[in-house]
Amino acid sequence: MTTAEIIAVGSELLLGGRVDTNSLFLSESLAEHGIEVRFKSVVGDDVEDIVAVVTNATGRAKLVLITGGLGPTVDDVTREAVAQATGKSLRLRPQALKSITMRLQSAGRPVTANQRRQAFLPAGAILLRNTGGVAPGFAVQWNRCRIVCLPGVSREVRGMWGESLLPVLRRDGLLSSAIETRTIHAFGLLEGEINDRISGILPATGPFRLGLLASPLGVSVSLTRSKTIENRKAQKGVPMQAAPSLDSLMDDVIAELGQFVFSVDGQTMEEVVGQHLRGRGFTLAVAESCTGGLITHRLTQVAGSSAYVDRGVVCYDNRAKIELLGVSEQFLKKYGAVSAQVAKAMAQGIRTGSKVDVGLSVTGIAGPGGGTARKPVGLVYVGLATSKGTSTTAFRFYGKRDAITLRASQAALDVLRRWLRDGS
Amino acid sequence: MTTAEIIAVGSELLLGGRVDTNSLFLSESLAEHGIEVRFKSVVGDDVEDIVAVVTNATGRAKLVLITGGLGPTVDDVTREAVAQATGKSLRLRPQALKSITMRLQSAGRPVTANQRRQAFLPAGAILLRNTGGVAPGFAVQWNRCRIVCLPGVSREVRGMWGESLLPVLRRDGLLSSAIETRTIHAFGLLEGEINDRISGILPATGPFRLGLLASPLGVSVSLTRSKTIENRKAQKGVPMQAAPSLDSLMDDVIAELGQFVFSVDGQTMEEVVGQHLRGRGFTLAVAESCTGGLITHRLTQVAGSSAYVDRGVVCYDNRAKIELLGVSEQFLKKYGAVSAQVAKAMAQGIRTGSKVDVGLSVTGIAGPGGGTARKPVGLVYVGLATSKGTSTTAFRFYGKRDAITLRASQAALDVLRRWLRDGS
Repeated sequence: MTTAEIIAVGSELLLGGRVDTNSLFLSESLAEHGIEVRFKSVVGDDVEDIVAVVTNATGRAKLVLITGGLGPTVDDVTREAVAQATGKSLRLRPQALKSITMRLQSAGRPVTANQRRQAFLPAGAILLRNTGGVAPGFAVQWNRCRIVCLPGVSREVRGMWGESLLPVLRRDGLLSSAIETRTIHAFGLLEGEINDRISGILPATGPFRLGLLASPLGVSVSLTRSKTIENRKAQKGVPMQAAPSLDSLMDDVIAELGQFVFSVDGQTMEEVVGQHLRGRGFTLAVAESCTGGLITHRLTQVAGSSAYVDRGVVCYDNRAKIELLGVSEQFLKKYGAVSAQVAKAMAQGIRTGSKVDVGLSVTGIAGPGGGTARKPVGLVYVGLATSKGTSTTAFRFYGKRDAITLRASQAALDVLRRWLRDGS
Repeated sequence: MTTAEIIAVGSELLLGGRVDTNSLFLSESLAEHGIEVRFKSVVGDDVEDIVAVVTNATGRAKLVLITGGLGPTVDDVTREAVAQATGKSLRLRPQALKSITMRLQSAGRPVTANQRRQAFLPAGAILLRNTGGVAPGFAVQWNRCRIVCLPGVSREVRGMWGESLLPVLRRDGLLSSAIETRTIHAFGLLEGEINDRISGILPATGPFRLGLLASPLGVSVSLTRSKTIENRKAQKGVPMQAAPSLDSLMDDVIAELGQFVFSVDGQTMEEVVGQHLRGRGFTLAVAESCTGGLITHRLTQVAGSSAYVDRGVVCYDNRAKIELLGVSEQFLKKYGAVSAQVAKAMAQGIRTGSKVDVGLSVTGIAGPGGGTARKPVGLVYVGLATSKGTSTTAFRFYGKRDAITLRASQAALDVLRRWLRDGS
């Protein structure tokens, strides 16, 4: 089984403002093809530092993927560093220059000396086509290691993966399918509660790894099965037994977590809800207060959502709640805008007013201001109005304003999901 | 000047689904205190691999920050790896056990053998308090390097930075203020256009680094001044001249980019717009189609936004545009929902209907479906209705559905910002 190492080049990645998203895409894509990423590094635009990292990586991995530093500016020094690390000289590759020239000319831009730099590659390198950008990638062999250099622009990396990179890795015989991963998503249980519920299911001795990851959107539960995990456990003297399949283990996990599981195949909550709505032929309208439009935005991010999302209203002001949803002024005065009664009236109001099948509402206190002892920051009511009646659910969330609104939006969609699954 | 290295421990970080956000926060915080991060690494939950990375890092950095792998499960092996790498033994620290016990008991949870593992620290380690979680952090000295171990939970890392970590770094004499960075944000120009406009401003010989980073929200332009950059250029034989101040350089950049600059002090577009609205005492209502609530959501993510955001409506369906905004059916038939005429009618409708000072509207085609030759995916109209009249602006965006809606929301807010700045 192949172990790989990913190196992201770019001083901007060390300053803190920017995340290296390429390595996420590459790790996932490599894992799908049975290549395990064992190390990742980030290094600045400094030849010496890049040489140090590349030398280190080629000593322990069979495949080293480098992103960034292939552009036309003087800060782009990956070509030079790889040449130095492998003892190869940089040479002008006419084929690379031709594609750079064509690309620039079609955009009406001149081929400057700096742009020409992108055509100088280490001797013997395989040219990797980049249809999405100017700078070509390349691959070189060094001792027992394949080194691949890709641009830093993630759109280009994604395009080159299937078109230029996979064929090289396949020819090298580096691909297999030794890693399997299954991930499900749950909402409404804490990470620790999930751990307690499912810890008995996973055999300690098998080639498995359990991963729990909490976020405002819930907890993702992933099971990984890999030959490498098995080999390492064997090296440490853990006895191996006949292992169950990943699918049967995951079925046990899903059965144990029951209604809290909202997605088993990577779908988001809004996609799951959308699928239910579409399946039933239901239309939906949303009335939001503290979530400020986030629920409607999330629902409409799903392609084709215009088939079931009729409208959304964000009633930040009480006057808007009265005018757009027909919530009575007396109600707002008596119970307050953040109350089960107003959540109920909002859901009924949006459902009746827009003549849809389902009305969903949220009202709450997102903070940081506006909380009281009786109604603290994080208190959120969700209302659901359908042909079967109206219900409300109260939640209490913790965290900052953005975490609270994100959790509230997920909770509201989960209320809707559960009703579509069980109650409708 | 101190160079640091950050190591994130966690096999889940190598599988591709999860981003290491701790290193972003830590890089930024370290830079603010004059510590330059020169390398970052990610490594799995494997003692041997962690020892390799730690040994490598301690050989070249004065400060090594490790996050993750301090929890109670058997996968949490950072304590063991650091002990091995530094040749120190792991010992039970009564003070650590006491804080773990108190924390667990207050949550009504038992102190299991696994939980007790968190109190075993390398001999001589400084205990780092973690008020946000169970696992304490620690710091050890190894040769000429300070090694600091923090949990993987980002909330806990952020809490420990100021409370537990800074005092240690200050006592060690590692802090300075040798890095200065200024960042501005621009919208409406491409990265290359900005580069061309400002490339003459930055002296090639000075201790400066220019960073341009494009996203759907615009381009961030950062200038960094650091002794390290100067030293490295000097080593390479670049002659040094008296350098202008970072502030005066940034002033030149801002003057050159003019109205395209929307933020000079890290504010988001919605914060800038909010500040303008609040300053004028204006109220705002938003009518969204293709952005599906994103604009209203972004505006209301700003604390205190209830003072100027009156309401938002998401008119995904034409019927909603007619009922909620009073857009005429004939208009929709004649020009189509995605047209300058309908954008204008939507902005006027939301302004009049909700009796606010400013009405903002967006209609467009987010894709992937719904595009035609005359009205392609990515075509977006923004409407603005004020007491001075109504205007519309057409945009054409590229990318996937989520990138198009994000760009459209930013463009709409930028239209509003420019009017508030110049036209109101």
